[in-house]
Amino acid sequence: MIGARTPEPGVPIRIGLLGCGTVGQAVVRTLIDGAVTIERASGHRLEVGPVLVRDPGRERPGIDPSLLTDDPARVLDDPSVAIVVEVMGGVEPTLGYLRAALARGASVVTANKQLMSRHGPELLRAAEEAGSELRFEASACAAIPVIKVLRESLLAAEIGAVTGIVNGTTNFILTEMGRGGASYAEALARAQELGYAEADPTEDVGGADAAAKMAILASIAFHSRVLIDDVPYEGIDHLEAEDLVHAEGLGFVIKLVGVARLLHGSVSVRVYPALVPRGHRLAAIGGADNAVLLESRATQEIMLVGPGAGGDATASAVLADILSILGTHQGSFLHNALADAGRPIAPPGSVPSAFYLRTSVADRPGVLARVARIFADEDLSILSVVQSGSGDEASLVLVLHKGLEESMRRAVTRIRALDDVRGEPVMLRVLGSGEGGD
Amino acid sequence: MIGARTPEPGVPIRIGLLGCGTVGQAVVRTLIDGAVTIERASGHRLEVGPVLVRDPGRERPGIDPSLLTDDPARVLDDPSVAIVVEVMGGVEPTLGYLRAALARGASVVTANKQLMSRHGPELLRAAEEAGSELRFEASACAAIPVIKVLRESLLAAEIGAVTGIVNGTTNFILTEMGRGGASYAEALARAQELGYAEADPTEDVGGADAAAKMAILASIAFHSRVLIDDVPYEGIDHLEAEDLVHAEGLGFVIKLVGVARLLHGSVSVRVYPALVPRGHRLAAIGGADNAVLLESRATQEIMLVGPGAGGDATASAVLADILSILGTHQGSFLHNALADAGRPIAPPGSVPSAFYLRTSVADRPGVLARVARIFADEDLSILSVVQSGSGDEASLVLVLHKGLEESMRRAVTRIRALDDVRGEPVMLRVLGSGEGGD
Repeated sequence: MIGARTPEPGVPIRIGLLGCGTVGQAVVRTLIDGAVTIERASGHRLEVGPVLVRDPGRERPGIDPSLLTDDPARVLDDPSVAIVVEVMGGVEPTLGYLRAALARGASVVTANKQLMSRHGPELLRAAEEAGSELRFEASACAAIPVIKVLRESLLAAEIGAVTGIVNGTTNFILTEMGRGGASYAEALARAQELGYAEADPTEDVGGADAAAKMAILASIAFHSRVLIDDVPYEGIDHLEAEDLVHAEGLGFVIKLVGVARLLHGSVSVRVYPALVPRGHRLAAIGGADNAVLLESRATQEIMLVGPGAGGDATASAVLADILSILGTHQGSFLHNALADAGRPIAPPGSVPSAFYLRTSVADRPGVLARVARIFADEDLSILSVVQSGSGDEASLVLVLHKGLEESMRRAVTRIRALDDVRGEPVMLRVLGSGEGGD
Repeated sequence: MIGARTPEPGVPIRIGLLGCGTVGQAVVRTLIDGAVTIERASGHRLEVGPVLVRDPGRERPGIDPSLLTDDPARVLDDPSVAIVVEVMGGVEPTLGYLRAALARGASVVTANKQLMSRHGPELLRAAEEAGSELRFEASACAAIPVIKVLRESLLAAEIGAVTGIVNGTTNFILTEMGRGGASYAEALARAQELGYAEADPTEDVGGADAAAKMAILASIAFHSRVLIDDVPYEGIDHLEAEDLVHAEGLGFVIKLVGVARLLHGSVSVRVYPALVPRGHRLAAIGGADNAVLLESRATQEIMLVGPGAGGDATASAVLADILSILGTHQGSFLHNALADAGRPIAPPGSVPSAFYLRTSVADRPGVLARVARIFADEDLSILSVVQSGSGDEASLVLVLHKGLEESMRRAVTRIRALDDVRGEPVMLRVLGSGEGGD
């Protein structure tokens, strides 16, 4: 799959990097951490380097200094480099570098949305002519695998619309403005403080970043050539807190959305701040998250949500692209894992959870004291109690702090045996209290 | 990729079907509708048949009656059948059929969660030994591509937890109970009426369906052997409307959740009704939808949402599995689409939207009349008006019915020129009013 130069399984695959900033360093870390899994899955051992940087004299943690170079030819012309990972950004000289890598038969993985939304078709053609691969999952929404889903899972699904919140910076700012009535300037300052916005936020708040991502997604969704110049975009810097208040009063939230759809056989792609009805799926997407809604007749609405930026998330997408170029021997990998090499199953009683318990009780003096005594005996601590109704038809509802399931089961058996308790207690777990989420 | 018998590109690929109920018929329809896209993407033309059914005498719309057979050998032993699609369900005799198909080198696509959660490891081993492929995306959450994302995009991501609402029937019932205070029996009856629940709903409401899906997802996420017998499960049939009311008072909603996580190196997978905090991502998943939350350090939380059942959604997943077995010449496909064969770009002014407009106005008699006059001239109809403040600092906020963008722009130009209007009006679109979602 990696073209003319695909080494046989067992032969190490050399990965050259262009750029070694936040994302590049996360890529290197991810390749090192995931080495065993990658080898088990693909049959290939990965080797990192050379790495093109501006200042090879400066140390990068975890990277052999002899791999750092400021000579692009060491990455681009070395026939032992099978895959070039581009995380340097920018359009020039990056475009020329990627052309050179593809021309000599290397495959390329890029996280560069500006480049792909301007020169994607040209680079895809160059890859095809050279018999190599070009992957760009990380160029739109980082670790959210929306390009893979569109290219593979929904390839034949006849997508009618792609609607997305594809810029985390603006979503954070709008969430802040909507929450506390902060002004645009205050919310931007807060985003900068927390690392969600650059010192120069123009590309994010002006809509260009979202437009580039929407151009890429629309190309894949509609099998059509859409470049960033085809995407009219507006930003959020002219909004005032007042607009968010008015929107709320009218039953809306304000989001910067990208909307790509088919309109009488043509493709329309746009980015603008929009009033989103409060019940709409995208209205619930808060903070710096990204979300993309894919609509087709067969699948109705599929939504993908996740962090749309960040070094580790971007590196995860780059790694997925590398694996997809190498190909995975999945039968073998899954078989080994499922048949032999799996992890043990945890005994159910050992899983800690917080519980909700509802019991029907006779409302007599002392019933709560008796129930509370049992929980104390079992070392389970009560978070809240509500008693409703009266006489023989009262309900006692308790929520407990996290504890062991076996303790809870013993407590319920004892409570069921109390004279004051009627029927079968209802015991539910609280999500995020021990299992899944904490 | 389809093993010993992979025909060269250009040679048609014959797809045999086991079963032709709702899902099977949707698969056939989808294969016919998507034929051109599939051939462009994979280089292979697909041919449908033979199709194993119980009563070959009964007509199926769109299927040549001579392809229908009640003899399994016609599907399983015919060397011209390269891929067997199993949509008949059940464990026996299905297991034997799939063993036979794999043994003779055919690849298999199955939508059968009960079979995969009981015999998945054995079937994967059989596929590996025969050098063929076994795919099962449709066995968990229909068209939501969660298995592909786990197997490929997040293969090296070290998933820590998979939390899901993976049964649409119970989610519909709980949403109904939470909304109107319906009893369990009333909500179930409504689900049956709308086709969201079977006449015998035991497998859904008792939790077995969710447990099978969670076993499959946990296997892939944790690279471990998890069978349905490893998954303790509880259902929702013992809940009362009262529980949903108490939960709401405490700040929760109730959902049937599947929770798979690593616990000190062991795998814990369970299904139970849980109190989900109102701010949790899964709390917003209503109706018959499914949602799966995938957590890892690198990617934080990625959530996939969509319809988890239905003939067309399941067929879409089956088709994606077939394409993944055939392999896609994506470079070529994308290049053609992006460079030449794409659709035209729609002119922006022709896109209809509903608009929100805020203008700062001097609060003088007649200002609203003058603004309203302009909209009437441009054939734009006003949905709501709010005027706030007074004197020179008043705001006029209008929401309009859907209209053409060019009309709106003309109206705003004229409004801006009015004596009573101060500064720059803010114009936002309303999502779902013309673009994306209607």
